[in-house]
Amino acid sequence: MIDLAALPFDAYLLARRAQVDEALERVLPRAAGRLAAIRDAMSYSLSAGGKRVRPILVLAAAEAAAPGNPGAVALAMPAACAVEMIHTYSLIHDDLPAMDNDVLRRGMPTLHVVYGEGLAILAGDGLVAEAFALMAREPDATGRPDVAGRKLAVIGRIAEAAGLTGMVGGQAIDLRAADRRPGDQPLDADGLQDMHTRKTGALIQAAAVSGAIMAGASDAVAAAIDRYAASLGLAFQIVDDVLDVEGTDVELGKSAGKDAASGKPTYPALFGLDESKRLARQAAESALAALSTAGLERSRLAAIIQWVVARRS
Amino acid sequence: MIDLAALPFDAYLLARRAQVDEALERVLPRAAGRLAAIRDAMSYSLSAGGKRVRPILVLAAAEAAAPGNPGAVALAMPAACAVEMIHTYSLIHDDLPAMDNDVLRRGMPTLHVVYGEGLAILAGDGLVAEAFALMAREPDATGRPDVAGRKLAVIGRIAEAAGLTGMVGGQAIDLRAADRRPGDQPLDADGLQDMHTRKTGALIQAAAVSGAIMAGASDAVAAAIDRYAASLGLAFQIVDDVLDVEGTDVELGKSAGKDAASGKPTYPALFGLDESKRLARQAAESALAALSTAGLERSRLAAIIQWVVARRS
Repeated sequence: MIDLAALPFDAYLLARRAQVDEALERVLPRAAGRLAAIRDAMSYSLSAGGKRVRPILVLAAAEAAAPGNPGAVALAMPAACAVEMIHTYSLIHDDLPAMDNDVLRRGMPTLHVVYGEGLAILAGDGLVAEAFALMAREPDATGRPDVAGRKLAVIGRIAEAAGLTGMVGGQAIDLRAADRRPGDQPLDADGLQDMHTRKTGALIQAAAVSGAIMAGASDAVAAAIDRYAASLGLAFQIVDDVLDVEGTDVELGKSAGKDAASGKPTYPALFGLDESKRLARQAAESALAALSTAGLERSRLAAIIQWVVARRS
Repeated sequence: MIDLAALPFDAYLLARRAQVDEALERVLPRAAGRLAAIRDAMSYSLSAGGKRVRPILVLAAAEAAAPGNPGAVALAMPAACAVEMIHTYSLIHDDLPAMDNDVLRRGMPTLHVVYGEGLAILAGDGLVAEAFALMAREPDATGRPDVAGRKLAVIGRIAEAAGLTGMVGGQAIDLRAADRRPGDQPLDADGLQDMHTRKTGALIQAAAVSGAIMAGASDAVAAAIDRYAASLGLAFQIVDDVLDVEGTDVELGKSAGKDAASGKPTYPALFGLDESKRLARQAAESALAALSTAGLERSRLAAIIQWVVARRS
C-alpha cells in the first residue's frame, strides 16, 4: 500500500476510505443463482457507505503502532473490513421493526424496507459469519507463527465486543429503555453510559486495539491505544446524541430527532446541550492524554479524535 | 476427561451429552443487572437440550482421529460448544415470525414467544459472537504454536459453514421456497438438496472436520471425515423430513407436519416416503464407505450414522 504519511488529514481520510471501500468490495464470497438475492442484500448495506470510522481507526492504530512499516496496515486490513461488516450487521438488526423500526439509514431506505424482514435478518447474520471467516482466513501468506496468535487475539477481542457484554448487551439495554414496562426505572446517567459503552464503545475500542495487535504493538502501546479508544467511543456517542438534536435528516442520512421523540435517554436530555458538548470535549482530552503516555500524540489517532468531535454527521 | 472407549454406544452418547451440557453451562460470560434478561434469553435456548448431535460429532471425530489420546477430546470441546451455540442461534432466528414463524421447539415455546422478538433476535446474535469468542479464547493453556493454527482453521471452517454460502444461504433459499412470488419455480430435487447442503449439511460437516483438525488429524484422515460428514448431513436431513411426516409433536418436540402443510419442499413430497428412506440408507452407506478409506469403520463415527438414520425424533 502507498505511504500516506505526507498527506493532509482530509486527504488521508479520503485515501484510507477509498482503500477500505475497495477491500470491502472483495470480502463477500461469490454467489449467484439461488444465492443472488441474499448476497445482494448483504452487499446493499455494506456498500451503502458511511464514514468508515471504525475500519479507518483499525488502520490508523496499526500505523501508529508500527510507524514507517506499511506492511502493518496491510496486515490489519482484514480486521478493518471485519469491524465494518460487524458494524453494518448491527445497524441492519437495530433498524428492524422488532427493534428501533427505522426506515432510513446512511441516506437510503433500510434493508428490511427493500428486501423484507426475513432477508434483512439473514443478511445481518451472514455479515457476522463472513467477518469471522475473513479474519481467520486472511492475511494467510505470511507464514509467521506469531501472526496466527495475533489473529486469534483480534478475533477474540472483536467477538467479545460483539457479544453479550458488548454490542448485544448494549442493544438489549437500549431496547428495554425504549420500551419500559410498568415498574421499570428510566435510565440514569450511569445506565446511559453503560448502554453506550457496550453498544458503541466496545467495537470502537476493539477496532483500535485490533489494529495495534496486528501491527505487533508492545503491551504498553496497545494499552495506551485501548485507553484512547475508550474515550474516543464515549466522545463519539455524545456527539451522536448532540447531532440527533442539532442535525437534519439530510446531514445525518438517518431520521434526525428520533431518539428524543421516542423518549430514549440521550446525553442532551440528561445533561443539556452545552454540558453534553463539554463532556465530549473532555472525553477527547482524555483520549489525547492516553496517546501521549505512549508518545503517540502526533499520530493520525490524535487527528481522528478531533475529527470525531467536530463532525457534522 | 474419562475414557469412554469401553462403554456401549447408548451409554457413550449419554456420557458425551452430559459432558457437552456441563461445558455449555459455562460458555456464557457472567452478566447480571441490566444484562440479566438477555443472558437469560440466551441461556433459555442453549439449555433447552436437543440431542446434541453436532457437538457429540465434534468430539467423536476428535476421538476417531486421535484414538487413545483423551487430550484430543478436551482440545475439541470449545469447538463442540461453539457448534452447538451456532446451531441454537440458527434455530432461534429460523423460528422468528419473519422466518418460519414457529412457536414450539425442543418441546418448549420458542424464544420469541417467551422473550419477545427483539430480544430473540439479539439472543441469536449474542450466541454467534460468543461462539467465536470461545473458540478464539479456549483452549489457551497449551502453549503449542501448532494449536493456534488449528484454532484458526476451525474458526474459518465453522464461520464459512455459518455464512453466505452455508447456513445463511440455505435459509434464504428456504425462505424464498416457502414464500414463492409469481413466476418463481418450486424447488426441484437439485434445489432441495442444495438448500439442505447449505442449511444443515455445512455445519454438520464443519463439526466433524473441526474435531479432526483439533485432534491434529492427517490430511487423509481429515478428508475422509469430511466426506463421511457430507453424507451424514444428507442422511440427517432426509430422516428429518421423513419424521416430519411420520412423527408426532411430542416425539419431535416441534410442530410435526408443518413443512408439508406449508407447501415447503421435502424429500417425501418429491420422492415419496419409501424412496426417501432408501435414499437415507444409501447416504448412510456412503458415509460408512468414506470412513473405511481411513480405517475408521470401527470408530464411534460409524455408530453415529446408524443412530441418525434410526432415530425417532
